[in-house]
Amino acid sequence: MRKITFLFAVLFITIAVHAQQALWGGSQIVSPEINNDNTVTFRLLAPNAQTVQITGDFLPTRKMKTPYGDFDVPGTENLTKNDKGIWEFKSNILSSELYSYNFIVNGVKVLDPSNVYMNRDVNTVTNIFIIKGIPGDLYSVNNVKHGSVTRLWYYSQTVNKARRLTVYTPAGYNDGNKMYPVLYLLHGMGGDEEAWMALGRMSEVLDNLIAQGKAQPMIVVMTNGNITQDAAPGESALGLTQPNMQLPKTMNGEFEEAFPEVIKFIDSHFRTISDKADRAICGLSMGGFHSKFISAQYPDMFDYVGLFSAAMLPNNGVTSEVYKNADNKVKVQFSKKPKLYWIGIGKTDFLYKYNVEYRKFLDDNKFKYTYMETEGGHIWRNWRIYLTEFAQKLFK
Amino acid sequence: MRKITFLFAVLFITIAVHAQQALWGGSQIVSPEINNDNTVTFRLLAPNAQTVQITGDFLPTRKMKTPYGDFDVPGTENLTKNDKGIWEFKSNILSSELYSYNFIVNGVKVLDPSNVYMNRDVNTVTNIFIIKGIPGDLYSVNNVKHGSVTRLWYYSQTVNKARRLTVYTPAGYNDGNKMYPVLYLLHGMGGDEEAWMALGRMSEVLDNLIAQGKAQPMIVVMTNGNITQDAAPGESALGLTQPNMQLPKTMNGEFEEAFPEVIKFIDSHFRTISDKADRAICGLSMGGFHSKFISAQYPDMFDYVGLFSAAMLPNNGVTSEVYKNADNKVKVQFSKKPKLYWIGIGKTDFLYKYNVEYRKFLDDNKFKYTYMETEGGHIWRNWRIYLTEFAQKLFK
Repeated sequence: MRKITFLFAVLFITIAVHAQQALWGGSQIVSPEINNDNTVTFRLLAPNAQTVQITGDFLPTRKMKTPYGDFDVPGTENLTKNDKGIWEFKSNILSSELYSYNFIVNGVKVLDPSNVYMNRDVNTVTNIFIIKGIPGDLYSVNNVKHGSVTRLWYYSQTVNKARRLTVYTPAGYNDGNKMYPVLYLLHGMGGDEEAWMALGRMSEVLDNLIAQGKAQPMIVVMTNGNITQDAAPGESALGLTQPNMQLPKTMNGEFEEAFPEVIKFIDSHFRTISDKADRAICGLSMGGFHSKFISAQYPDMFDYVGLFSAAMLPNNGVTSEVYKNADNKVKVQFSKKPKLYWIGIGKTDFLYKYNVEYRKFLDDNKFKYTYMETEGGHIWRNWRIYLTEFAQKLFK
Repeated sequence: MRKITFLFAVLFITIAVHAQQALWGGSQIVSPEINNDNTVTFRLLAPNAQTVQITGDFLPTRKMKTPYGDFDVPGTENLTKNDKGIWEFKSNILSSELYSYNFIVNGVKVLDPSNVYMNRDVNTVTNIFIIKGIPGDLYSVNNVKHGSVTRLWYYSQTVNKARRLTVYTPAGYNDGNKMYPVLYLLHGMGGDEEAWMALGRMSEVLDNLIAQGKAQPMIVVMTNGNITQDAAPGESALGLTQPNMQLPKTMNGEFEEAFPEVIKFIDSHFRTISDKADRAICGLSMGGFHSKFISAQYPDMFDYVGLFSAAMLPNNGVTSEVYKNADNKVKVQFSKKPKLYWIGIGKTDFLYKYNVEYRKFLDDNKFKYTYMETEGGHIWRNWRIYLTEFAQKLFK
């Protein structure tokens, strides 16, 4: 075994020296360490830093004033340095969730070098960790049967180019000839076909709900809702250009108009049950806006509609056919009795008031919908909860 | 359009405040900026830092002494601070490649907050960028037809558990009934079924070579070669535990013995041409070791074998059937005239001398093989080159 050990040692060195780790005599830093009582200890080896702070969504928020109003932003805490140059902070007891954080070293926001797990949200990267329990276990890979996830390209005749899709097929799909219902799951502004996978923990949520018998096995299709974008950042011919929040034409009707060709592609390339009763659409923020207009424009297409923190805004100045006579289209949609029209929003969401207005319109017309109101604002924590709730009500 | 603009603004704030960016009046940092002459400018906003350095594989290496010998490690350069608190470093003119780097702020290795593109290599994360040209363009997503990439699970009877696979199917696979040859592409120690995708730029290389008519359309299967590991870090029920370099049983024969069931699964779930002439296996380092022993153990299985910087070590003390009479098995393998036996290694690789010994054995026996020697050592830059070379010689 001597030679094998040699290989281990040398490969370990090869990795470690590239990592600039304190290899010889240096201690191995564990961070984050989730303690038995669900406090979490964060550590950073930084003997020469003057200040190290942590910011994350598990800390009490603080108010930030902006020209557009006051915003709740994650708070900040100081780490304390010990005599070995290791900075440390221990959190309060945390309830079960998927949390994100960054360190701030001498004023520079950095990722935790001891934690390889991170999420990109548009152009921001944070480290993540999960506290066990409910809902954290739903967001975790458990010892259950897993679905498959495929990244593939379809050709859009509407915009005359190939566009990327992320498609989840449930456990069992690869081992039979069964046909499945389909959920179309749309992202928000700045997002892409990877957002629900990474930030929404979509495949974990569906794997777990299906394994527990709480959701029907279904195909889940994640499109790229930015019609001018072929694919997520890094996955298109734009190369490794940095993500841009303000993409053009995201809410001008083109994506909604082109949506039937996505359904056509999915129906011809996957074993779907291709009817209204076995098709759902939902989305967050801009994706909720898209879901509202797509489902109203094509009222025979979806029996299940989910609007998560939806951007229920007036469409002043946008001339697309999709947005014309919007109220009438919703009336036609409800006359065809969709099985579920689901709305969820956080109490402090900046879009809350627009959802109140839209619900008033639905109420005034006696249109039946299911409503969920949660704490917090326009955040992924809520969208994971909404997906979990919505998915359990589908195709039953 | 006023309301839409409001949505843009507020969503942008929501993202930006979470990102702790200097929003109001703060400048937007561009880093890395690839200049027209292929110098690269790196920038970091860090007014309160005392020192900012950069380390990366585009800088001249330096020698690092270790108990196991001297190692070439990436060099380090200082950034210079301007009066706005922005630190900057401009590289020399760089030849085309995919490069990686980190900043070091007051002694702490950090990622570049202006660059969302990064690679994980075992437990180390670095930012990446690509300089156009050859070979950089091969590692880039170009405006060509793209294959699909699927992450799925197969049940291993041998180890009695589900294990994860990453499978590339070429452009056109989803739109026909054609059967395809298969390349099994194995990772090295500390790697997993994601390593060739992320660090090896496998799907980009194959998309581009196939689009240029230089490689045959083929299915590429990336297994997890760590038999005790179900899936890549973060993708198994181990949860978000940090990657571990020293996994047990990685070179004890179990993975090699279990390999036929992977082939059986792939042949029964994908449209493969299931014969020796349409099956290839290759791998880097430990994956080269695996490829050598699997192809010799099953001499009627693979017509194409690629050993990339292979761990050609003596197997003292390991008792698996797979390693018994190894030389004789290779002799049987060559008696069956494989179409290609390909060896590649870097001149300064710590495994170089073991490859010299193995090539002497092949030469002494007059076994024909193709040999490529490159600059540098045990690094991904070489493995991407070897994949590019090897893939072009397959199934022709």
